[in-house]
Amino acid sequence: MANRKPYQLVSREWKSEDTTFNVNGTEIGKDLLMVAGPCAVENKEQICTISEFLAKNNVKFLRGGAYKPRTSPYSFQGLKTEGLKLLRDAADKYNMSVVSEIMEIDKIDEFNDYVDIMQVGTRNMQNYPLLRALGKINKPVLLKRGMSSTIEEWLLAAEYIVSSGNEKVILCERGIRTFENSTRNTIDISAIPMVKMLSHLPIILDPSQGTGHRELVSPMSAAGIAAGADGLIIEVHNQPNEALSDGDQSLFLDQFKNLLPTLSGQANLRGKTFDYEKPNFEKSFN
Amino acid sequence: MANRKPYQLVSREWKSEDTTFNVNGTEIGKDLLMVAGPCAVENKEQICTISEFLAKNNVKFLRGGAYKPRTSPYSFQGLKTEGLKLLRDAADKYNMSVVSEIMEIDKIDEFNDYVDIMQVGTRNMQNYPLLRALGKINKPVLLKRGMSSTIEEWLLAAEYIVSSGNEKVILCERGIRTFENSTRNTIDISAIPMVKMLSHLPIILDPSQGTGHRELVSPMSAAGIAAGADGLIIEVHNQPNEALSDGDQSLFLDQFKNLLPTLSGQANLRGKTFDYEKPNFEKSFN
Amino acid sequence: MANRKPYQLVSREWKSEDTTFNVNGTEIGKDLLMVAGPCAVENKEQICTISEFLAKNNVKFLRGGAYKPRTSPYSFQGLKTEGLKLLRDAADKYNMSVVSEIMEIDKIDEFNDYVDIMQVGTRNMQNYPLLRALGKINKPVLLKRGMSSTIEEWLLAAEYIVSSGNEKVILCERGIRTFENSTRNTIDISAIPMVKMLSHLPIILDPSQGTGHRELVSPMSAAGIAAGADGLIIEVHNQPNEALSDGDQSLFLDQFKNLLPTLSGQANLRGKTFDYEKPNFEKSFN
Amino acid sequence: MANRKPYQLVSREWKSEDTTFNVNGTEIGKDLLMVAGPCAVENKEQICTISEFLAKNNVKFLRGGAYKPRTSPYSFQGLKTEGLKLLRDAADKYNMSVVSEIMEIDKIDEFNDYVDIMQVGTRNMQNYPLLRALGKINKPVLLKRGMSSTIEEWLLAAEYIVSSGNEKVILCERGIRTFENSTRNTIDISAIPMVKMLSHLPIILDPSQGTGHRELVSPMSAAGIAAGADGLIIEVHNQPNEALSDGDQSLFLDQFKNLLPTLSGQANLRGKTFDYEKPNFEKSFN
Repeated sequence: MANRKPYQLVSREWKSEDTTFNVNGTEIGKDLLMVAGPCAVENKEQICTISEFLAKNNVKFLRGGAYKPRTSPYSFQGLKTEGLKLLRDAADKYNMSVVSEIMEIDKIDEFNDYVDIMQVGTRNMQNYPLLRALGKINKPVLLKRGMSSTIEEWLLAAEYIVSSGNEKVILCERGIRTFENSTRNTIDISAIPMVKMLSHLPIILDPSQGTGHRELVSPMSAAGIAAGADGLIIEVHNQPNEALSDGDQSLFLDQFKNLLPTLSGQANLRGKTFDYEKPNFEKSFN
Repeated sequence: MANRKPYQLVSREWKSEDTTFNVNGTEIGKDLLMVAGPCAVENKEQICTISEFLAKNNVKFLRGGAYKPRTSPYSFQGLKTEGLKLLRDAADKYNMSVVSEIMEIDKIDEFNDYVDIMQVGTRNMQNYPLLRALGKINKPVLLKRGMSSTIEEWLLAAEYIVSSGNEKVILCERGIRTFENSTRNTIDISAIPMVKMLSHLPIILDPSQGTGHRELVSPMSAAGIAAGADGLIIEVHNQPNEALSDGDQSLFLDQFKNLLPTLSGQANLRGKTFDYEKPNFEKSFN
Repeated sequence: MANRKPYQLVSREWKSEDTTFNVNGTEIGKDLLMVAGPCAVENKEQICTISEFLAKNNVKFLRGGAYKPRTSPYSFQGLKTEGLKLLRDAADKYNMSVVSEIMEIDKIDEFNDYVDIMQVGTRNMQNYPLLRALGKINKPVLLKRGMSSTIEEWLLAAEYIVSSGNEKVILCERGIRTFENSTRNTIDISAIPMVKMLSHLPIILDPSQGTGHRELVSPMSAAGIAAGADGLIIEVHNQPNEALSDGDQSLFLDQFKNLLPTLSGQANLRGKTFDYEKPNFEKSFN
Repeated sequence: MANRKPYQLVSREWKSEDTTFNVNGTEIGKDLLMVAGPCAVENKEQICTISEFLAKNNVKFLRGGAYKPRTSPYSFQGLKTEGLKLLRDAADKYNMSVVSEIMEIDKIDEFNDYVDIMQVGTRNMQNYPLLRALGKINKPVLLKRGMSSTIEEWLLAAEYIVSSGNEKVILCERGIRTFENSTRNTIDISAIPMVKMLSHLPIILDPSQGTGHRELVSPMSAAGIAAGADGLIIEVHNQPNEALSDGDQSLFLDQFKNLLPTLSGQANLRGKTFDYEKPNFEKSFN
């Protein structure tokens, strides 16, 4: 916590009140933002089954990878444009918003057509040309923390976006790389209150990527909200054991449903409401 | 989560139910264990002021360093025997139990006279002769995680104690060493549910050492309990700015008091009671 | 060293002999590759002074940043196209080859006009669209290790390039991120012999980025060659204290000159020649 | 490289010339110190076979663990006193000196009888009571770097010994803990020249513990000397595949022999002699 911060527009000194903005009825930074869905869109049946389930549980943001950044060139790389279309169709059917990861500037127009929130993944947190380009659009950007980025570097990455003109940045803690090998990454929960002190931007947690184990998603989700997170992004799959990627860390549908009362209790403790039990399901999409 | 665990007695496979044990009326592993006090015992007035305050807030475990493991040989090394005596006197006056760090085998007899729970610090987590010696006494051991120890190594350190004959081990997550430099250490909250899956031993969190910033103690304490911790150990000082060590991470007395309702709320969510408002203060020590 | 490698084309199993290729007369992977120059091209005088000095010391590869990936959006971002032109002119005048960092696909055509070796920086090691695009050109790619990438992830990044059609990949160890804070990064010298075992690709070392201190460049350069590196990339500046970026880690011209006998001695020990004393300077560019 | 150093007696500011001291004819800090031997003493035949081989190759320091700090209480813990005796007997027979690890204060008298250099292992680098006790004896101490210790903390650990009265401290880099998992630890070669700048104490390298792979011992040994190390400590075993501990990182006898010309070449480059070919074998012990 040096006295002189190298970032400016994203700092609390620059703007003391929390940044909030509305995406299709959800006030991000104020309401609890719940994003859920599969690691990757695999086919129509998969994404529709998951979307319907999520909508019934009042989840309003659907995540799903269409262009997947995979460590190996031989792994499933996503359905690309077809994946974006499937996401959009499913989201429209169930009155949801779409969150998906973008990796290159040339795809911004395409993403603009299909996606409500542009996700920048951990590997591209310091892809500055991409950050600058996303600073010139009018859609929120979900900026994941680089897997070995300090909080200061992360806020400076956000500064690239905001200083280019786009103030709608959502930070997302997703675990950092450490020597501990029983979890996929080490979630830095303390980054949540630290970011809250340093910046006015909303911050959410990804407990799925962060741990790599579905058994840890529930306690880490609770911990994240308890520490001050403005939301969660969780991997859910109708058949985790058949998933084309990240099956081990994806919740079964029942697990996700069982998680909701805990999260609601945590939200209440912080004076936020999270009404998972009262989706206006009939009205919304029948 | 390898299939074959290298540890045995501390594993869930060996014993499926949670280990609990009673220390002066508190059922550790079941009740929420709250340990608080200064980093180091400095003088009689300091320790008495803090103890009285803690007792009035129903805290029953007093922490304080008498023998301090300091990175520099020129830093304050603790009041040693005199510090243990001051701790014991203050605890007796206010009906509390004493937790203090032991660094060498030759001091075990002395500690036995003054201390209720023997703390092994992060630097000695793999001091195996010490662990074995503590396995032969009849006092609980609070085993802090090594600052660069994997969960497996930590459980193996506990196995050294348990296999020597002492089952009363309390694990304590206190942050690990990473590249992030805005916090003193990076608290690995996911270690809490991971340990709960792998082991039957109770586990608590040290949010003070873990973060190094008093502003982060409250959210991290909440996160720790939300993630499943069985308790907390928190640094509190009547004059943090005058403290001989770790002042930046010590709570002011008022800050500590303000933290309690949050922790009570978190405890309730997990079905535990934490009655900070009803100390039997009069009866206890007047 | 798992038995099944996730990469294929870059592995020793696929191709047992070392990959070598010729760039303007230097046989990379066989001759000792020496790349030197400033962190960033700043102006004509600077780059010409440095280039002339390097050419007189028989250095044939000129490095210099034109598009700089800076952690802060407010730091000097490079001269861009103008920087590439200055690099090319200086290199042509002194019969040198140009190495410069590329950050986005849209700049590949421009870089093709000015640059002999395309550098991918640490922040873009997992920018897969960029890697794939560089796999379709006919210029060597210098692939720096991601600051928190395992050797396996690094080789998989190289696999993205090679499997797209470009076999001319030079790996570059530049330090990884650890808890140690006296150096800017921690150079992983063991990565050099480990990569040599696992892969047939050439590997060089960046002792400047790796340490952040000019005093460490000489011993680390020697260590790199002793461990098996095929070359070095070193930051040199005519006025390090006035440099617009990375001045602390840039060698003074004299320091660079003093380093050469050591490197020659190290090269000889490994049966490589490094003739820093016999540049065909007159013939080359007078 | 902060301006105010927290250590004093071990600093270059305190004493500008290199510390050197003589151990049985070897001038440590000036001559190249070569320590070799098995991870653990296993039996008489093993230690005698290895010692004879080492003596024939002019190695004058025999390493071997008698009290082994093992991560699991169920692993082989060493032959203890019997191991020390076997080491001493073998060393005496072949005119060698003994280096062995000590873990507790109560064993100092015993070690004084058998050992020439007291080794403090990575797990005990911050065992301050032990360091202070070793500061009061008249034998050199080989102080390994803690696996997650900064250079500053390491020098402060040395300061504990020196400020207690014993100036004969040899530092030993043995790898630090990072995310990289293809090697057992990540050797921080840059720590060698950094320590040389900051301190007057001799520093050696352990390439066996540092890498965990015998194939990497040769290049890393060369790199260590090239970077300025004053010596090496290498694990060698007559039957690595049968070793009771650390077999994967132990050199076969032939591998060790093949390493010597490289090390001699490296020593010569730094103006040091390392006469592996001229042991006065006959005179010494026949």
